[in-house]
Parts: sequence; C-alpha cells; structure tokens
Amino acid sequence: MEKKFAELKALVAEIHDLKAALALLEWDQQVYLPAGAENGRAAQIETLSGVIHAKSTAAKLGRLIETLEPADYPEDSTERALLARLRRDFAKKNKVPAKLVSQLARTTAEAHAAWVRARQAADYTLFAPHLARIVELKRRYAELFAPSASIYDPLLDDYEPGMTAAELDRIFEPLRREQAGLVRQLADRPADDAFLHRKFNGASQLAFSREVVKKLGYDFKRGRLDLTVHPFTTSFGLSDVRITTAVHAELPVSCLLSTVHECGHALYEQGIDPALDRTPLAEGASYAFHESQSRLWENQVARSLPFWRFFYPAFQKRFPKQLGDVSLERFYRAVNRVVPSEIRTEADEATYNLHIMLRYELELGLLEGRIPASELAGHWNAKMQEYLGVTPRSDTVGVLQDIHWSLGDFGYFPTYALGNLIGAEIWNAACRTVPGLEEELARGNFRVLLEFLRRRVHCHGAKYEPPVLLEKITGRRSIDSEQFLTYLKGKYSAL
Amino acid sequence: MEKKFAELKALVAEIHDLKAALALLEWDQQVYLPAGAENGRAAQIETLSGVIHAKSTAAKLGRLIETLEPADYPEDSTERALLARLRRDFAKKNKVPAKLVSQLARTTAEAHAAWVRARQAADYTLFAPHLARIVELKRRYAELFAPSASIYDPLLDDYEPGMTAAELDRIFEPLRREQAGLVRQLADRPADDAFLHRKFNGASQLAFSREVVKKLGYDFKRGRLDLTVHPFTTSFGLSDVRITTAVHAELPVSCLLSTVHECGHALYEQGIDPALDRTPLAEGASYAFHESQSRLWENQVARSLPFWRFFYPAFQKRFPKQLGDVSLERFYRAVNRVVPSEIRTEADEATYNLHIMLRYELELGLLEGRIPASELAGHWNAKMQEYLGVTPRSDTVGVLQDIHWSLGDFGYFPTYALGNLIGAEIWNAACRTVPGLEEELARGNFRVLLEFLRRRVHCHGAKYEPPVLLEKITGRRSIDSEQFLTYLKGKYSAL
Repeated sequence: MEKKFAELKALVAEIHDLKAALALLEWDQQVYLPAGAENGRAAQIETLSGVIHAKSTAAKLGRLIETLEPADYPEDSTERALLARLRRDFAKKNKVPAKLVSQLARTTAEAHAAWVRARQAADYTLFAPHLARIVELKRRYAELFAPSASIYDPLLDDYEPGMTAAELDRIFEPLRREQAGLVRQLADRPADDAFLHRKFNGASQLAFSREVVKKLGYDFKRGRLDLTVHPFTTSFGLSDVRITTAVHAELPVSCLLSTVHECGHALYEQGIDPALDRTPLAEGASYAFHESQSRLWENQVARSLPFWRFFYPAFQKRFPKQLGDVSLERFYRAVNRVVPSEIRTEADEATYNLHIMLRYELELGLLEGRIPASELAGHWNAKMQEYLGVTPRSDTVGVLQDIHWSLGDFGYFPTYALGNLIGAEIWNAACRTVPGLEEELARGNFRVLLEFLRRRVHCHGAKYEPPVLLEKITGRRSIDSEQFLTYLKGKYSAL
Repeated sequence: MEKKFAELKALVAEIHDLKAALALLEWDQQVYLPAGAENGRAAQIETLSGVIHAKSTAAKLGRLIETLEPADYPEDSTERALLARLRRDFAKKNKVPAKLVSQLARTTAEAHAAWVRARQAADYTLFAPHLARIVELKRRYAELFAPSASIYDPLLDDYEPGMTAAELDRIFEPLRREQAGLVRQLADRPADDAFLHRKFNGASQLAFSREVVKKLGYDFKRGRLDLTVHPFTTSFGLSDVRITTAVHAELPVSCLLSTVHECGHALYEQGIDPALDRTPLAEGASYAFHESQSRLWENQVARSLPFWRFFYPAFQKRFPKQLGDVSLERFYRAVNRVVPSEIRTEADEATYNLHIMLRYELELGLLEGRIPASELAGHWNAKMQEYLGVTPRSDTVGVLQDIHWSLGDFGYFPTYALGNLIGAEIWNAACRTVPGLEEELARGNFRVLLEFLRRRVHCHGAKYEPPVLLEKITGRRSIDSEQFLTYLKGKYSAL
C-alpha cells in the first residue's frame, strides 16, 4: 500500500509540475509576452493543457485511486484527505466526454472574441448568440451530474465544493433584504473626496503598494510583484506565489487596494503547509475561501481606520502636493465613500454583494431557461436599477463588463460574495481571539493577524471541505450573512 | 501519406510547444525567479523534460517516421528535410539507454554543485573526481555510436552534424600555426584605453544597447531584452525570441557587445521562414552556424570602424564626462585592444580561438584517456602559457572558469571557433554581394546586411546540413580558416 501511495503521489506531483508550467505560460502572457507572440503562446497553452488533461484522466491514475481506500488512513490525516480529493476530482473529470470539453473550448474561444468585439461596439446583441450556445453547453455539462436539486448545483460545485443554489438563496436572502436599503441610505451622504481626483504618480503608488504588502507579510523571497492590465495572483508551487497589480494615475488608492487584495490571496498560498506542496491540497479550500482572504485584507484591513492610522503619514509624505492639507479622518472617509456605480470591480464594500447577486440571479435564469440569452441586457439593466439605482450608460459598462461568461465560467460569481461573508466571519473570529487586534494593526503590527490566519486558515490548504474548515475557525458550519451585515452597519454608522 | 504526414507534424508541433514551455521555465529561472523558488523550479524542469523525452522517443512517433519515406518527397522540399532530420534525431535518441540518460543527469547535477564549490575554493581537485565520472559516461555514450574514426566524433555530431575530429584538426591547423604568433605581436602594442576604465552608468549602457539592437533590426514585437547574470538567447517559437544581457559599470562596451552578440543569435531565429515554425527545422543549421551569426554581428559589425562612425556620436553624448575628450579613432583602437588574458568570455577577436583550441585539445585528451582528469589543471596551465603566454592566477580563472564540462557538454566548445570561421566566410560573401557594404553600415543602414543574411542564411533554418548551407552561401562546402586569418590580419594591420 505504501508503494502504491508513493506511486500515486509521484503521478500527482508530475501533474502539479505541469500545471505550474502552464501557469507560467499564462503569467508570462499577461506580464512580459511580446505583442507578436500571442498565437504561438495560445498553441503552447493548448498543447500543455491537453497533456495535463490526458494525465489527469489517465487510466493508470484511476486504477491507483481505486486501489487505495481513504478509510484505510487515519481520520484527519493528509493521506485520507488527498485520496478523497483525488477520487472526487477524477470522478468528476471522467464524467465529461472529451467531445464536450473540446466543444466548450471552441465555443468559448469564439465567444471570447465576440465579447471583445461586442464591447468595442457597445452592442450586446453581437455577443448574445454566443452566450446562448455556451449556456446550452453548460446545461449539458450540468446534466451529466443529474440528478441535482438545481441545474446550477454541479456548476457551483466546481468552484465551491458542496455548495448548492438552495443554500445560496438562504445565504443571500438577508443581503437582498437589507443591503440595497443600506446602500441607498449611505449614498445620500455628502462627499468630500475631490483631493482623490488629482494626479498621483504611478511609480510612487507602486512603490508604496510594495512597501505595504511587505509589511503585511508577503514574502518576496517566494514571490514577485509585477504590472498587468488586470491584477491577479498565480502560484507555481508554494515557494513561488506571484501577484500583479495595475496603476491608475487618477485612482490613487486603487493600486494599493488591488495589490493588498492580491496579497491576501498570496498570503493564503504562501501560508499553506509545505508538506502539502505538489499535491492538489496545496491550494485554497475553495474559491470563496480564497476570496475571503483577499477581501479580508482589502476591506477589513486596508479600508480600515487602524490601517490608515499607521500608513497615512507615509502615504501623505509620498504625495504632499495632493494630500498635504488632507487630514487622516477626511482621507479615511473619502476612501470609504459609498457610490453605487455600474462597475463591479470598482464597487465599494457596501455595494459589492449587490453586483454579485444580480449576476447570480441572471445566471440561474439563463440556465433554467427562464431568461433567453437574447433578452439578458434588458434584465441586467432592470436589476441594476432595482438593486443599485443605476442604469448603465452602455452595454460595455453593463451586461458586457465581465469576462467570465464569455469563458463559460458559470457558478463562479457567487464565490465573490461568499468570500465577503466568510471574510467577515473570520475577521470576527480574529477579533475574538487576538487581544487588541485593531490597536495592534494601528501600531503596524500586522503579524498578529497573519499569524492567526496562518494557523487557523492558511496552513490547512484544501485539506478540509469548506464547511468543515469554516467550523474549525468560527464554530459554525454554515455561512452566516448576518455577521457581514453587522460589520457593514457598524463600519458605516461610525463614519 | 498526406494524412500520416499531418499526423507526424501534429506530434512534432506538440513536442515543439512543450519545449517552448520548458524554455520559458528556464528563461524565467534566470530572469525573474524569486530566490526561494529554486527547488520547485528544478522539479518542474525535470518533470517537463521527462514528458518531452517520452514524447520524443515514443513508439508512435517512431512508426510514423518509419512509414514516411524522405525520398517520396521532392528534392529540396521542406517535407524531405524534415523527415531526414526526424529520422536522424529519433535514431540517435533511441540508441541511448534510459539508464545512461539518468546516470548522466545525476552525475552532472552533482558535478555542477562540486564545480561551484571548487570555484569558490579555487581548488580544481574538488571537481576532478566528478569530471572523471562524467568523462567515463561520455565515453560510454560515444561508444553507443561505434565504430567512429574518433571517440570525439559522436559527441561533436550532437552540436555540429557531420563534423569530425579529423576535420577539426585540418581546420584548426592553420590557426594553431599563425594565431598565437599574431597575438604575441599585437599584444606588444602600446595601449591607450584608460578612459574605458572610468565608471559608466549601467542604465545608460542598457538603454544604448537597446537602441543599437533596434537599429540592427531586432524585432521587439517578437522579442524582449532583459537583464541576467550571464547573457543568453532563447526562443519559444519564431514569434518570441528573447535576449538577455548583463551590465558592468566598469566595462562600458561589454554590455553593448554582449547584447549585439545575443542579438545576432536572435536575428537568426527571427529570420527563419515562418513555414518551418513548430518543427525541428525552425532553428539554426547548427551550433557553429548560430555562433557565426552572433560573432559576425559582434565582431565584424560592432567592433568595426564603420559601426562606430555611425554610433560613436550617440555613445559619446551618453557619456560626455568619460568620453567627451576621446576621439573616434582612439575609442575604436581601445575597443579593439588585444590583451591575452585568462578568461575566454572576455577575449578579444585575435585571441578567442586560442581559448577554444586549448579546450578542444584537452577534451580530446580526456576522452582518449591520454589526460587523466586528475591532471587536467596542469595541462591547462601549460597550454595557456604556450598559446597565450598567460598563467592563470588560480583554478577559478583557469581550468574551472567554464560551466560546460560540469554539465557534460563535451564537443560543444569547438563550435565557438567554427562560428568565428564561418562568420568570416559569410562576412566575405556579404562584402562581395552587397555593394559598398561598409559605407552603408557607416551611414547606419544595417538593413542591407540583415537582408543579405535573411535571404542567404536565416530563412533556411535547419533545412540544410551545415556543409550544404555553407556551399549555398560561400560556394565551398568545407570551412576555410584562411579567410578568418586574412580578415584578422587585415583588421589589425589597419589599426
């Protein structure tokens, strides 16, 4: 058995290494690829993806997984968790016919190109027929896992193991009831943020962001920070977790918040137990758990008063012309201004979940056949008005704003909102556990928070199913959206 | 047949893509890898190399290669050249037992670490036993291809198809006779290059080098220039050919010459017919041919008076404090100063080949068993004295200076000297073909040279065996070292 297990681990490590090479092809594509090399790189990505798929679904791997019984290993052991995870993934992957995989690949490649054109023309109708085909294929994909209570469940499960549409509805219900009202109330407050709309030197913003993430605990010996159009985090193993960010001269805190957000993802990966490296357990417990870490550092930390108490003097010093006459309190209020707007990625803490719920409801409508793809733009605009009181100026900043649907990523969006909720729960657990947490942060002692997260969240990687991990941290298995609402109301009532 | 050929091309393209991914892992390792990620990256490189090896020696590939007959395709066709090349490579690879491959890999990994330690201690004896084991394994490798006139021939053939030790001896004989004497004579001339030993800002050197290679024709849309410790060129397909360089504040032309050298390699790759992309023909005809292109641009161009007639004013303007009072002629003479020295990579045009011949003779002695590895350092020092009149201060700058032997790269060094010789021949052909070539270069019209090289050398990639390609360019199949000697004497008599 030990020999078989070692054989299995070698196969799994090989797949891990090839995935790392694939991730490097993709990282380099965003960061350093020469303009003329796009086609060559696309071919390389396709080829390597094919090799990885073949190895991940190989009969040899399947036989080893079959032979080894999770129950033969101690409860709570890494071996048992690894076998369970491998069984789950292998079974799921092998249920999908190769033909459907390649149809999806071709359809989404075409759809992505159409989405780019539609955005340029600000015309959703150019994208609608492609979306209809994707929805059809995603329905077929989901049906492979029938019976399921909702057609949405198997899709959601790809990102959030075990999560269901019914559970989502339960979790989102209080948000739907309270968040829109809260936003309307907060958005009426007078704004004083003109000083944020001056020009801020990009290199200085980047340098400041670099200093901050270093202070938060990001390990540059096992990572890098580079510039890209869209910020992201990628990992080539636990010793190489890279983040990227973007700089906008006229959005002075956007670079910082993006970098801290990605840093939150990276701290998670850098904190995983090295014993799990080169296995599928060497990643976050789920997409929502991953997002809980990026959002916690971005919102509960980098949009907080304690954070700016510590960092504002340095920030002000970097931008004396723009901020010399701006007090910490004015600055803090400006950074936390609530402005319902069209664009999800620029949304503040109070409005963010509304963007997600809108997308979730539309995805569900598309997949259940209640909303034809051809009519999606109208539904989008109506919901935007209902939830945020905003009507998009054009499809480009409306229904076409996100890339996800063009790539076939249905079931992904809800993990963003779940991440916010889990983040608030973990934040509460940290406040209960770490004495004087906020005072420590205001003194620049970010290590206390990182150590809490390392011990309670990060080190476990994907060893536990999300509800089990949540219970270990918070004492409750199911996600509790009330804690997020309480946090939000508390924060804004003090502003 | 067409179907089988398409199948073969698809397999070959897949291997090409995986090799590109491997090359990216290695490029990133030199350029951007975080310090703590070395082990993870080594594992990724090993895994991907294994996948590539398996695919390159797969029975399926072998059967297709067997089935398809080169003679069924028109003479001079790409198909025929590709099949011949694939047969040759496949046969060679499949002659080597997997056990020997892994023994070599393990032995050289250990030897490389020992070489690093030996350099630090300046003590060759720490490396000698490792070298002895490598020589033994390389002998065993060469014997797989018995009978061959020399044990050296199969090793040489890996880098320079068809080249033999006997042919090398014929080619090197005139160099051995004349070059050492020429060097002694040139080295006695008085030097006037104190101004080169001032401090030159590194960023300015890099910026100037970037300008120069752009002007020479390096296509930044299909490439990049980055900094590394040791400059190199790598290619991920014809649309992504990257170069790296290094900056030394106290060697002001070293960055430029290194960059131009790598640019020469890159111009070759960027000039290959796109129809050959994703096949093994999409590379240089041989190592010597590749080196002929880097050396031609580095020496015949970037160390020439016409080159500096055009570029010196800009260079002087970048460094007014250091060069404001230095005339073009003084500068040109300083750049071409002949100084026999210990280090190959810093050697001038007149002494370079002597460094190579020394290594070739020692390699041959090791492989033929005439020189025991334990006595190599003594032989090295004696030969250095004989050829260059220099005795190394220590093993670190003597027998341990190059990385090649620690990696098992026997048969590689001669291609550097062959590159110099082929470069001189191609340069002569260019001078005969392009009217007023040197005047054009002095006017900054480097395109005329690039176009000649594109048409006569680059576009063919590895379609022709090296002697066939040489004949197409120069009219002669065998390498003529006299042309290099004539070039050298002509250059230095005018100095």
